Amino acid sequence: MKICRYQTSPQDEVRLGLVRGDMVHDVTAITRELPAVRWPYPPGDLFIAHLEALRPGMEALADAAEPVPLAQVLLRAPVANPGKFVCGAGNHKVVLAAGAHPRRLGFLFKMTSANAGPADGVILRWPERTTFHEAEIAIVIGKTCTEVPAARALDVVAGYCIGLDMTMQGSEFPSFGKSFDTYGMMGPWLTTRDEIADPDALAYRLTVNGEERTADTTANLVLGVAELVEHAASVMTLHPGDVIFSGTPPMSVGPVAPGDTMAVEMEGLGAMTVAVSGGPGRKTPLEGMETEPQEA
Amino acid sequence: MKICRYQTSPQDEVRLGLVRGDMVHDVTAITRELPAVRWPYPPGDLFIAHLEALRPGMEALADAAEPVPLAQVLLRAPVANPGKFVCGAGNHKVVLAAGAHPRRLGFLFKMTSANAGPADGVILRWPERTTFHEAEIAIVIGKTCTEVPAARALDVVAGYCIGLDMTMQGSEFPSFGKSFDTYGMMGPWLTTRDEIADPDALAYRLTVNGEERTADTTANLVLGVAELVEHAASVMTLHPGDVIFSGTPPMSVGPVAPGDTMAVEMEGLGAMTVAVSGGPGRKTPLEGMETEPQEA
Repeated sequence: MKICRYQTSPQDEVRLGLVRGDMVHDVTAITRELPAVRWPYPPGDLFIAHLEALRPGMEALADAAEPVPLAQVLLRAPVANPGKFVCGAGNHKVVLAAGAHPRRLGFLFKMTSANAGPADGVILRWPERTTFHEAEIAIVIGKTCTEVPAARALDVVAGYCIGLDMTMQGSEFPSFGKSFDTYGMMGPWLTTRDEIADPDALAYRLTVNGEERTADTTANLVLGVAELVEHAASVMTLHPGDVIFSGTPPMSVGPVAPGDTMAVEMEGLGAMTVAVSGGPGRKTPLEGMETEPQEA
Repeated sequence: MKICRYQTSPQDEVRLGLVRGDMVHDVTAITRELPAVRWPYPPGDLFIAHLEALRPGMEALADAAEPVPLAQVLLRAPVANPGKFVCGAGNHKVVLAAGAHPRRLGFLFKMTSANAGPADGVILRWPERTTFHEAEIAIVIGKTCTEVPAARALDVVAGYCIGLDMTMQGSEFPSFGKSFDTYGMMGPWLTTRDEIADPDALAYRLTVNGEERTADTTANLVLGVAELVEHAASVMTLHPGDVIFSGTPPMSVGPVAPGDTMAVEMEGLGAMTVAVSGGPGRKTPLEGMETEPQEA
């Protein structure tokens, strides 16, 4: 199952859709089956938490819906309420070959206010500084868990997205440069785990303005999907909607500038294009976010 | 106003209370005025977002409540649904004196699954490794905002807690060692901004088993409360319930071990004791969290 969040225009509500071929089928009505919640919220993304139970109803709604061409919709962040973004660091065989031990490197992090989808674009808040693209597989957790051995780790995975772990370069601690608004780009949709036979063997490719920057496969990661989940869960409780960005080959990252277009595709997970914009002190027009201090 | 989240026993629901002197007044009923929310949730802690409007009703409920001695309650994390934990790094005058530029150092981060309160205690998941205490002022954001100049930054602050930014030491990227479950300790309660005339002049003190480890004042921070908010908001959208841990003097951090008791107090914000426990592979018994993979 391929699940997207989309709009048919910028004024439209954000809808839930099933992607079949190059068409989107509106299944927003299924969200009425999710319980209303009162403060304090339970941790985790409520839709992802209930995804397995909702699937038959979503298929039935999709069968009845009038499909819309994918090319006509605005794709928003596929996970609406992520609880954490964990980013693999140094997690590539070329790094291991250079003598590093990836388990000692641990993880970097990204604040979830950076959550964005293709139609949001990447906005360089500090365009006078250099921001790199990092194309990765994004692992979306499906169940609350901690201390999960690798042998059982795929059981707690809901599915996968393409991730663009955008990272501003500089002397700051690296997680800072990953946490700018829009720097947690995922898309084009969430592909459920059952559709991907082996997440550790997916070819992917990223171009900027048509020029190839990255061409690799997840087989070259040191910690694969199951081991990334095991390692994160060894010290943290994971919740539905938490995301682990896998890491990427360090020789294939590179800068982007306002006006650039990134195109990224991964075997089984689809393809997306993401525009880059920015300007000094540019405010972020993300969906649902206010840009000035005001009463909530 | 001093607002706590507490239980009268481990089996009790987590209640909302006003602290007056050494007594707690149950104001849980006010939370029924918060709207029920459907997925996707708006970003931010719903109670903090509505705090200003709820204050008169909370005072009235507290007036009518039969108070319970603070000494008899279990204090839980004062912010129920934090959206991000941002941690000041190198933010102390002794670091500046050594030649560093704190704005270049940026921030470290902590995953919000580390959120904990005094009664949860700090649990060393990897007790064979060293974990340090860092006593700090924790700034709780009250309004959705981005790009807030320092001159207006206090307007977006809801209040303050004492923060214990627990950090496992080692060769991992530092945010990793800050993100273990229970390592985001806050308490004893949220003191609203109007009660603190100058957050940049608060003396604080931390002892471990009665031995003084930290005695300092927030006046020795390089970036004060307003500047920390300005800096974080320069690249990220902040939401109600987001927390900025200020940073602490690097010469006054130190290790804790299972069996230790930390006691920390800060002028105007109260005092709390926090027990340290742990063991190899110890699972975390945090409120409301499951510790094995299971259906959500």
